[in-house]
Amino acid sequence: MTANRMWGGRFREGPAAIMEDINASIEIDKRLAMQDLRVSRAHSDMLEARQIISTADARQIAQGLDTIYAEITQGHFVFKPELEDIHLNIESRLLELIGPVAGKLHTARSRNDQVATDFRLWVRHAADDAVTRLFELQKALLAQAERHAGTIMPGFTHMQPAQPITFGHHCLAYVEMFERDRTRFRDARARMNESPLGAVALAGTSFPIDRERTAKTSRDFALEYLAAGTICSTNLSRLAEEIVLWSSPAFGFIRLSDAFTTGSSIMPQKRNPDAAELVRAKTGRILGSFVALSTVMKGVALAYAKDLQEDKQSVFEAADSLDLSLAAAAGMVNDMQIQIEAMREAAGRGFPTATDLADWIVRVLGKPFREAHHIAGAIVKGAEALNLPIQEMPLEEMQKIEPSITRDVYSVLSIEASVSSRRSPGGTSPERVREQIAFWRERLT
Amino acid sequence: MTANRMWGGRFREGPAAIMEDINASIEIDKRLAMQDLRVSRAHSDMLEARQIISTADARQIAQGLDTIYAEITQGHFVFKPELEDIHLNIESRLLELIGPVAGKLHTARSRNDQVATDFRLWVRHAADDAVTRLFELQKALLAQAERHAGTIMPGFTHMQPAQPITFGHHCLAYVEMFERDRTRFRDARARMNESPLGAVALAGTSFPIDRERTAKTSRDFALEYLAAGTICSTNLSRLAEEIVLWSSPAFGFIRLSDAFTTGSSIMPQKRNPDAAELVRAKTGRILGSFVALSTVMKGVALAYAKDLQEDKQSVFEAADSLDLSLAAAAGMVNDMQIQIEAMREAAGRGFPTATDLADWIVRVLGKPFREAHHIAGAIVKGAEALNLPIQEMPLEEMQKIEPSITRDVYSVLSIEASVSSRRSPGGTSPERVREQIAFWRERLT
Amino acid sequence: MTANRMWGGRFREGPAAIMEDINASIEIDKRLAMQDLRVSRAHSDMLEARQIISTADARQIAQGLDTIYAEITQGHFVFKPELEDIHLNIESRLLELIGPVAGKLHTARSRNDQVATDFRLWVRHAADDAVTRLFELQKALLAQAERHAGTIMPGFTHMQPAQPITFGHHCLAYVEMFERDRTRFRDARARMNESPLGAVALAGTSFPIDRERTAKTSRDFALEYLAAGTICSTNLSRLAEEIVLWSSPAFGFIRLSDAFTTGSSIMPQKRNPDAAELVRAKTGRILGSFVALSTVMKGVALAYAKDLQEDKQSVFEAADSLDLSLAAAAGMVNDMQIQIEAMREAAGRGFPTATDLADWIVRVLGKPFREAHHIAGAIVKGAEALNLPIQEMPLEEMQKIEPSITRDVYSVLSIEASVSSRRSPGGTSPERVREQIAFWRERLT
Amino acid sequence: MTANRMWGGRFREGPAAIMEDINASIEIDKRLAMQDLRVSRAHSDMLEARQIISTADARQIAQGLDTIYAEITQGHFVFKPELEDIHLNIESRLLELIGPVAGKLHTARSRNDQVATDFRLWVRHAADDAVTRLFELQKALLAQAERHAGTIMPGFTHMQPAQPITFGHHCLAYVEMFERDRTRFRDARARMNESPLGAVALAGTSFPIDRERTAKTSRDFALEYLAAGTICSTNLSRLAEEIVLWSSPAFGFIRLSDAFTTGSSIMPQKRNPDAAELVRAKTGRILGSFVALSTVMKGVALAYAKDLQEDKQSVFEAADSLDLSLAAAAGMVNDMQIQIEAMREAAGRGFPTATDLADWIVRVLGKPFREAHHIAGAIVKGAEALNLPIQEMPLEEMQKIEPSITRDVYSVLSIEASVSSRRSPGGTSPERVREQIAFWRERLT
Repeated sequence: MTANRMWGGRFREGPAAIMEDINASIEIDKRLAMQDLRVSRAHSDMLEARQIISTADARQIAQGLDTIYAEITQGHFVFKPELEDIHLNIESRLLELIGPVAGKLHTARSRNDQVATDFRLWVRHAADDAVTRLFELQKALLAQAERHAGTIMPGFTHMQPAQPITFGHHCLAYVEMFERDRTRFRDARARMNESPLGAVALAGTSFPIDRERTAKTSRDFALEYLAAGTICSTNLSRLAEEIVLWSSPAFGFIRLSDAFTTGSSIMPQKRNPDAAELVRAKTGRILGSFVALSTVMKGVALAYAKDLQEDKQSVFEAADSLDLSLAAAAGMVNDMQIQIEAMREAAGRGFPTATDLADWIVRVLGKPFREAHHIAGAIVKGAEALNLPIQEMPLEEMQKIEPSITRDVYSVLSIEASVSSRRSPGGTSPERVREQIAFWRERLT
Repeated sequence: MTANRMWGGRFREGPAAIMEDINASIEIDKRLAMQDLRVSRAHSDMLEARQIISTADARQIAQGLDTIYAEITQGHFVFKPELEDIHLNIESRLLELIGPVAGKLHTARSRNDQVATDFRLWVRHAADDAVTRLFELQKALLAQAERHAGTIMPGFTHMQPAQPITFGHHCLAYVEMFERDRTRFRDARARMNESPLGAVALAGTSFPIDRERTAKTSRDFALEYLAAGTICSTNLSRLAEEIVLWSSPAFGFIRLSDAFTTGSSIMPQKRNPDAAELVRAKTGRILGSFVALSTVMKGVALAYAKDLQEDKQSVFEAADSLDLSLAAAAGMVNDMQIQIEAMREAAGRGFPTATDLADWIVRVLGKPFREAHHIAGAIVKGAEALNLPIQEMPLEEMQKIEPSITRDVYSVLSIEASVSSRRSPGGTSPERVREQIAFWRERLT
Repeated sequence: MTANRMWGGRFREGPAAIMEDINASIEIDKRLAMQDLRVSRAHSDMLEARQIISTADARQIAQGLDTIYAEITQGHFVFKPELEDIHLNIESRLLELIGPVAGKLHTARSRNDQVATDFRLWVRHAADDAVTRLFELQKALLAQAERHAGTIMPGFTHMQPAQPITFGHHCLAYVEMFERDRTRFRDARARMNESPLGAVALAGTSFPIDRERTAKTSRDFALEYLAAGTICSTNLSRLAEEIVLWSSPAFGFIRLSDAFTTGSSIMPQKRNPDAAELVRAKTGRILGSFVALSTVMKGVALAYAKDLQEDKQSVFEAADSLDLSLAAAAGMVNDMQIQIEAMREAAGRGFPTATDLADWIVRVLGKPFREAHHIAGAIVKGAEALNLPIQEMPLEEMQKIEPSITRDVYSVLSIEASVSSRRSPGGTSPERVREQIAFWRERLT
Repeated sequence: MTANRMWGGRFREGPAAIMEDINASIEIDKRLAMQDLRVSRAHSDMLEARQIISTADARQIAQGLDTIYAEITQGHFVFKPELEDIHLNIESRLLELIGPVAGKLHTARSRNDQVATDFRLWVRHAADDAVTRLFELQKALLAQAERHAGTIMPGFTHMQPAQPITFGHHCLAYVEMFERDRTRFRDARARMNESPLGAVALAGTSFPIDRERTAKTSRDFALEYLAAGTICSTNLSRLAEEIVLWSSPAFGFIRLSDAFTTGSSIMPQKRNPDAAELVRAKTGRILGSFVALSTVMKGVALAYAKDLQEDKQSVFEAADSLDLSLAAAAGMVNDMQIQIEAMREAAGRGFPTATDLADWIVRVLGKPFREAHHIAGAIVKGAEALNLPIQEMPLEEMQKIEPSITRDVYSVLSIEASVSSRRSPGGTSPERVREQIAFWRERLT
């Protein structure tokens, strides 16, 4: 597929080339460099503590690792593909820097140990990042909820108008959803930390030096991270879909900031919600990564096999996609301007207080709910025939349908009344929304 | 595709048929019957407690629901497809039984509320089931570990012999893996229970009567259950693969019980590990369900849409597959007979103590590990040339390669010595395995 | 998970129950009944032709199979779970009907042969069904295209208005897309028919009696069917999304027929596009089936293993979902009423002829395209500032920006002019659309 | 997640950074460079032919494009991330090289047109590559089949020995399977080429200049490529699994070449089948790509949206994985040495000719097959009790079970006799295998 297809059709001459390509993972696993250094340092400390290596040796190793750390962070480190992976690259550089004592670092551990530990640390860190990003997104949603606790918008089901709600209430539904995402990553992280016997802290001052155990380590921690990422991204895709729709002229509910739209060189009115579209699309990529790694692991006997090398690219890509999606979502929510009038106007269309009418019939007239529904339906039909919004329907017209209806009914028929009446815990009324905001304010600090 | 393809090619006449087919979910959601009754009872209690319905009404409703419960558990209840779903089936039967008061049960809730709550309860129960099944599987593995704490088998990497281990140690790796699966389901269950404001217990004595909130309920709880199920099933597939391989004559490490094999009418020696193969295959089905529901939810605006109806079949099928897999895995592990001699013999092949030799060179001769590896490699080559197992290699032959080697080296070259020496925490030596078994015994009671 | 969990926690007593559950496939594979009878008849004919069985025996077998055919089609056949699968059910009934001669039918074939062949025939038939359904959908789209070759609607990119197009043109894009789906199923079907040596027609008058070959038969034909189904369903989901959006009041572009919407008992104006939502959702289920079967097959050695039993349920469910989706899509397209005014009005918003203006500058003034874009952008900005549609922008205002613009420019600025001018092959102008319709009319007959 | 996380937590200051990251695709789409040049050249030719641009202009453009081609192939071209994508990079360089005339190239096409066309060409080329690679793999398998037309190995089902087969026969099953993969890619390629009106050859001398059409182009061609790749890779994973198993000491059926194994620094006997394991694992990655793109496309309205940008990375990665897998598979098959004795010995274990015995009873004694099976089963049990291979079972012992058995039965009981007797078309006997090889030799040239 690429230019360097050295082995094409002449396996006899250069089959090594395929193997080189198969084995060289440095382009991918160099992202583990920081973790590798940290794990090596912890291992060296442990070897010293157990008097397996001398304090002098441990000091030399630590200095060498520090130098490499500096080289990498300053961009001077030369990654060599011929050294296959990040571990051999670092090992080889350490040898150059401190000589044969470098070899002692590899006592009581294998490359597979190292890979597994480095990668686990990396994933743990990615889970932490997701938690932080989600926190920022929740705060952005909460700020919008606060600003718009009383802003009325149409509530939809099936993309058809149902009952009026407040925008603040809608935002809170997302805050809750992302709270579950956040705790999901937190639980995953806690599980990554676990050591079955309680004795060994991962990459702490001691070290799991049981090689058989490590070799058997499943990649379930990576799968769990990807699963949490997929669920989170699926949730994000729903927010993204709403942003795409709301910012289209057909709805006009929000205006995205310049920072999160792209224009078109000819149509200045064009404000394409590219960021939202990409957030929506990234769900596919992250789900794809979960499928990839699940399928890789499926049916592989419980011991190291080269198959496991395929874990990292899937996770790295998913983590990048998730990070970008969360950042973009928080940015868009933060910046977007709510078009209050457009929302309010749309909220009035389609007899959205018909359910309030039915509720009133139950509560005040004492009818069973199914019967009340039927009466309300008849009244809506009447209003439609007269081309009137329901709250302007004359009382006598309603009484033709149900004689016991009284003037009091109008108290529930306006959009504002409908919204205000939804005062059950968690309800959409501005006061309830503000209560919930207060709850979340506290929880998110 | 089926016989009742009434709408084929003549949409004008019978388009309703397609819609009927689309809408009728009773064949699927009748599995929610018990949950639906329980949720209705809780709702009726709440309405009574808040004096929305009278105590007499509540009592009538409760009696009606009890009758339906009895009818269903005794198999007398007639599910009617024309009543679309489980909720309308129960509602309609309640009306028959207690008359119009039945309608009062629907005060302050919608069918979507009910579906969402019933389904959440069902999934919570499925998570509980998984926890119980995993527990049984862990106990079966632990029992085998106990029986075979000292049984030696070859440790593999890449399906090539690596170092000798104990079968007990191998079983414990699975116990740990399934412990993570178990806590994953437990965490998922806890999250399903959560109510954002802490005030409302799901299907307890009070009830979330905020309809907008419920309508927005994401299906992330179902996704999380499916994710945990996929990871668990992927782990199971690895055990299943090993069972298939171990029970083939090429390995001959275990003998499955009659109960978990199928024979062939002509070949009496045939003991096909059908159960293990199906456990392996079910991973595909469960992953498929996760993909299905993730894709269904992707990009759907945050409000009820008919898309959500697709959640149940995916979850039911995955739950059935997982339940069967876990039961079959526990059953197979419980019953299988370990072929101790075959394992021990295989453990001796392929110079599996070469790493112990290298370790000895590091520890006793004080060489850096990479150099020790090189010496051990040369000795193995020599043994191969002489066609001897490594522990029978004459000392002088070893000394030709590394003069400082002493007779003490033989203490680490036997298979048994190798296994016994792995005494670090979590190690494969019988004593460490017994320690870990004791730890797990306590944890799993 | 279900009531009949006989094995729960007491494997010693009843492990057979799990195996029964694992092995019994009759509930699923009874859908292969017709194929099984047909294949058995062909096999019997072949055995007779090769004089392996006598003509009398063949006649008896044929009569027995005919009786069973009648029993099944008339609904009298009793499927027995204890007989595991469809093949043993039919075999056992044949024995009852014609006695021991029934056994001769199994000469030179195994149950695995039969399953593989039956299933392949079933999938081939499902592919044929998809071809037919797609054909109907294409015809429905073509009819709408014909009716609305000149109906103007806004063309979108990023859900933002771009250039005006005709509804007919948009429909044709779907006709083409579904044509690729149709040929994809046709190609898959052709491949299912293939016999490597050209000598053996599948389920024709002769029979592949090489058992080893059959046993190795991959399930790639089922995967290919599922892949084609997934792609087709992904395409359908895009049409479904547009139907959901177009039928929402925010767009109001179409009105779905009663037959394809559901109402709400209280809101008579509610026309929920349930069918479209389900078509959109089914994509998840079909993709899930493809993932399931791919994962099942992954890494399974090339020979029959019980894993393969998991192929049928995935395919059956996907086929049902696809069939329903295609029927519902054709039905909706057939019935939907285009709201011509709403489309036309929306087409006029957002300076959609800015690109035509740029094109005119290139063509008439001879400017490079990038420069022309820049000028057009400036004019649009000016029109926006004056709050005028672009075609009402005074000439002198335009000339302030680009002095060489002449009155001729107005010929391209109206929506109608824009649409009419798109006359390149495949273009959106009514005349081109009618040409393409003629092309498709011919192709689809 | 990465070092350049400029936007972390300070969206107000630098939100542009996220958008830059979202929009910059140059790192990915620079792989389209060759296609982009080729498409631009074709477009310029078309514009000239239609006299939209002058011949002089077309010549200048052609020269500029040639220069860029040379710069890229020689590695001198500087890709600039700030120019977002490959198209703007090339466009900008063309402007530098030939001045404002470069702008004329963009007449009558948009960037979306270009992307869609370039990408389609790239995928078409990838499909061609897959066809070539498959061809090479088939030839490698055919060569092994030829060498081992008569080499006997055990046929397995459920990983348990079933009937003896020839290795050549087993190889041919793969040849056929990969033939279906090959034609699948060929069909996909043909469909990519298709133009609905038959008039416009993709990137030929004319050009589809209908922008609306292009904008609507689905990505189903990419999905089809990924689907074919997933199926092919699933098939490859089965071969890879067999290679991993066969090369393990437990089977010892093949010896991989040095070129396709990796060793271990200490265990010289270690020959890890890394290449086979990676081929097996890549299935996950390719399936993941298909899922990713399907999910991206699901539910996106039919018009360009930024979501579509996610198509390329999925396809590029899958193509790389597939290319590597096919090359590695061909290389391994080419090089592997068949361990004839180990195969033959394994073929003799487990009464594998019991089915031949049953067939003999049917054919010679005229019993129904089910009865014959029963007799054969009893004889196998007897042989097992006497600890004899079936062909050494004394005649009188057999006659105790079925008196009419004659000495002639021994003619079918040996492994060699069993294999030789399988002479039906496509059968496993060496002569049939050689016939099939001849068939394939011809077909594959």
